[in-house]
Amino acid sequence: MADIRYPLSFNQITAKTQWTLRQAIEGCARHGVTGIAPWRDKLAECGVKPAAKLIRDAGLKVSGLCRGGMFPAADAAGRKAAIEDNLRALEEAVGIDAQCLVLVCGGLPAGSKDIAGARRMVRDGIAAILPHAKAAGMPLAIEPLHPMYAADRNCINSMAQANDLCDELGEGVGIAVDVYHLWWEPGLKAEIERAARTDPKRILAFHICDWLMDTKDRLLDRGMMGDGVIDLPLIRGWVEDAGYEGFAEVEIISSRWWDVDPDEVVRLCVERHRTVC
Amino acid sequence: MADIRYPLSFNQITAKTQWTLRQAIEGCARHGVTGIAPWRDKLAECGVKPAAKLIRDAGLKVSGLCRGGMFPAADAAGRKAAIEDNLRALEEAVGIDAQCLVLVCGGLPAGSKDIAGARRMVRDGIAAILPHAKAAGMPLAIEPLHPMYAADRNCINSMAQANDLCDELGEGVGIAVDVYHLWWEPGLKAEIERAARTDPKRILAFHICDWLMDTKDRLLDRGMMGDGVIDLPLIRGWVEDAGYEGFAEVEIISSRWWDVDPDEVVRLCVERHRTVC
Repeated sequence: MADIRYPLSFNQITAKTQWTLRQAIEGCARHGVTGIAPWRDKLAECGVKPAAKLIRDAGLKVSGLCRGGMFPAADAAGRKAAIEDNLRALEEAVGIDAQCLVLVCGGLPAGSKDIAGARRMVRDGIAAILPHAKAAGMPLAIEPLHPMYAADRNCINSMAQANDLCDELGEGVGIAVDVYHLWWEPGLKAEIERAARTDPKRILAFHICDWLMDTKDRLLDRGMMGDGVIDLPLIRGWVEDAGYEGFAEVEIISSRWWDVDPDEVVRLCVERHRTVC
Repeated sequence: MADIRYPLSFNQITAKTQWTLRQAIEGCARHGVTGIAPWRDKLAECGVKPAAKLIRDAGLKVSGLCRGGMFPAADAAGRKAAIEDNLRALEEAVGIDAQCLVLVCGGLPAGSKDIAGARRMVRDGIAAILPHAKAAGMPLAIEPLHPMYAADRNCINSMAQANDLCDELGEGVGIAVDVYHLWWEPGLKAEIERAARTDPKRILAFHICDWLMDTKDRLLDRGMMGDGVIDLPLIRGWVEDAGYEGFAEVEIISSRWWDVDPDEVVRLCVERHRTVC
């Protein structure tokens, strides 16, 4: 295991309620954080071109744009609309020079109990945007989400499944490895190794936070690194050994941290990244 | 797929706050439910021998005793205490003629981030009680729990993992298939088929409820069959094809249903079992 630490990137949702994109960019610069991952709603508020200039001027890189995906829909019109929205997301990702477009692939269409069908819709949706992504030189990062989001957010729920999907879709599609979603997966080490054997290598992003032992909320209770039960250095080592060379992107979705001074949040992210990750 | 429906068993936690074990037994008998699955705390209140007589007199069978397990602990004394508690659970299961002892295997020991180590403790704990279980003729049913319980309740989180563990432990250990925990698993059908190829067949229990699209609570918001997104007939068909011949045990852990007249809960379980399972 190489003795390196990834540079830190700040996923904007970590200070979702406190900061605009401009404020987040300034906050990162203030704390020596060299990467940022904007969300599309915040990017839209700011405007893509002004955001790109702010990010560039602050000396930041964009570890990923959150998010495309959400492909399954109850009818063809819905699926077409999702693809069109993903094409807009691709343009935005290119506009801010993102290292990847993160895909939260979508759950079950309204009224459906067909998770296998939803998974086929995800595959077909990614296949539909892939030629555009390749033409634009924008890697697509499938982010497998924890199985507790299989119904309502994302039916791609393990590293094994994401690898299978990448195998099927071919070049241009990779994986965002988020410790929160994957730490429990029994075969995680082997599946990260599998992602390292592809050419080009498949891991496009590495997201960090922590799983709190007594998680109170299914969506809004992710933990600060070090406050939970995930062995972060262990998983980082696997990702390093897989040849990943990007950022460690801190993405803490937590109503608890949204109540804290965002400068203190970033300061603590920097500290924990140095001490426990 | 055979055209059969499993007889219904009522897991007592479905009316945890409303009924004692005696009341649950009487309730089942009143509604024509022929199986029951007691929890150990309720069994202790009633006493094993009185409970056995009540169950027998009501013409019920015990689809399983909830629960053994909880093997991982921070030190050897804790692990020894867990094994001793499991031996008592075995005696109780025998005492009420349960079809299996359900094992909720346990999560991370206090202060630990070593999930692989916890999984080894589970394997070793089951191995320690297995000779006693075999001598008593009591099958041990590993119940894989949803990955959202990996930290605090059970580090066995998929059918694939449960199958691997059964392979390692050998005869006397099988699996409780609970749709709530496993519905999302991409390889579920194949893993149920795998469990059918062993001799004796590995599936010892089949638990039903539903996953609500907008699940509000990580622990206490399971849905009544038909109110959620799980394709119950599909998974039942897989279990049927695997040769399972026991009960469909309804286990709804939900503070919502604990506020309802338990006779109405059982009545609805019977109805939904007939109409949507």
